[in-house]
Amino acid sequence: MSTDPLPADRVPMTALPQARQSHARREEVLAAAAECFMRRGYEATSMDDVADALGATKGRVYHHFPSKPDLFFEVYRRAMEILMQGAAPAMADAGTAERRLFGLAKAHTLAMMESQTFQRSLTLGVDLYRFGSPSDEHKVVLEDLMRLRFTYEDLFRKVFAEGQADGSLKVPDPSLAMRTILGALNWVAVWYSPRPGEDRPHRDKLAEQIVETVLGGYLAPRSG
Amino acid sequence: MSTDPLPADRVPMTALPQARQSHARREEVLAAAAECFMRRGYEATSMDDVADALGATKGRVYHHFPSKPDLFFEVYRRAMEILMQGAAPAMADAGTAERRLFGLAKAHTLAMMESQTFQRSLTLGVDLYRFGSPSDEHKVVLEDLMRLRFTYEDLFRKVFAEGQADGSLKVPDPSLAMRTILGALNWVAVWYSPRPGEDRPHRDKLAEQIVETVLGGYLAPRSG
Repeated sequence: MSTDPLPADRVPMTALPQARQSHARREEVLAAAAECFMRRGYEATSMDDVADALGATKGRVYHHFPSKPDLFFEVYRRAMEILMQGAAPAMADAGTAERRLFGLAKAHTLAMMESQTFQRSLTLGVDLYRFGSPSDEHKVVLEDLMRLRFTYEDLFRKVFAEGQADGSLKVPDPSLAMRTILGALNWVAVWYSPRPGEDRPHRDKLAEQIVETVLGGYLAPRSG
Repeated sequence: MSTDPLPADRVPMTALPQARQSHARREEVLAAAAECFMRRGYEATSMDDVADALGATKGRVYHHFPSKPDLFFEVYRRAMEILMQGAAPAMADAGTAERRLFGLAKAHTLAMMESQTFQRSLTLGVDLYRFGSPSDEHKVVLEDLMRLRFTYEDLFRKVFAEGQADGSLKVPDPSLAMRTILGALNWVAVWYSPRPGEDRPHRDKLAEQIVETVLGGYLAPRSG
């Protein structure tokens, strides 16, 4: 069974080191699984593959996650958590919708770079939802995960609607705008690979270049 | 062994119907394989899956393609052929680079809709190239396929450079422009599913809306 560490104020001090250790090991399993799913796809990845990638026994993987679907769902959920957390400060910007869109898009791009293996699970999850044959129990979970995704996408729709209202954005169709902008940025998780020695300031700069390119479009301003 | 039909002028008339039949059957195998690869990924798809999807024997699949990699490579090659053929008329447009970019992007978007299962193989191919462990022989083929992709991407880079020269496009970095625009459009193959009764005029219109959204960007024109 998976055991997230309890909040620190509910855990006796003597128990903390073990809970932390367990949490760290669970995180290692998750990261290895995300990498395996990215490389081989959902169907072809086995719990053995994840154990091999960790250099651990299959027992260690099962200790934290009862099944491959549970492991995959947690990778997907984590990817969505990273996106939602990145979006929160951007959504809190009290300026124009354009500023919020820039912040949302930049946080999304950084997530594609910095949690690439997790983010690649999002497409796999959609394919699993559309084409897989999950058990009834897993179907319910997948539907929850799709709702998480819609909730996140709705942030973009909301900002586009606000941008129409405050005049800072030019959006004939907020849904199409959301899909195309997310496509351009999601694709970063397909082509991006970090350069040797790359650090956060480099990624920040690259993310801003990408977002400026996408938001600004590709056409020269019309004269007249 | 795979047998493409010979050019008509080299085939005795009596042999044509059989060659055509063989060609049609080979196309069915390819289409079934593209669908399987999209649904389950490269690694998890077996020749048995392709045969099952066809309602045929595995022997029929092997009759046309000697191995799974050969079958996958042909799906990928076909996807690239469709893109290159779609790009040709757009590249021949003698107007501004903006017109050529619009034509390229629209043809690309239509390909994502109309040959979706084939186009989804492009990401699988890149992952196979980056993460797979192909034989030496297959590695050579994969490198050829990556070159096909670069050749296609170069069309976009070329048009962006021309657009800087003729003033119709606004492109600080042609490579980043190519990657972001293709990302936005490639994503169509992830989210698109045809509506009942949808025909070419509908797809044409949707493709134009997508391309106008992407090329024009999301920001309202600055006043002053």
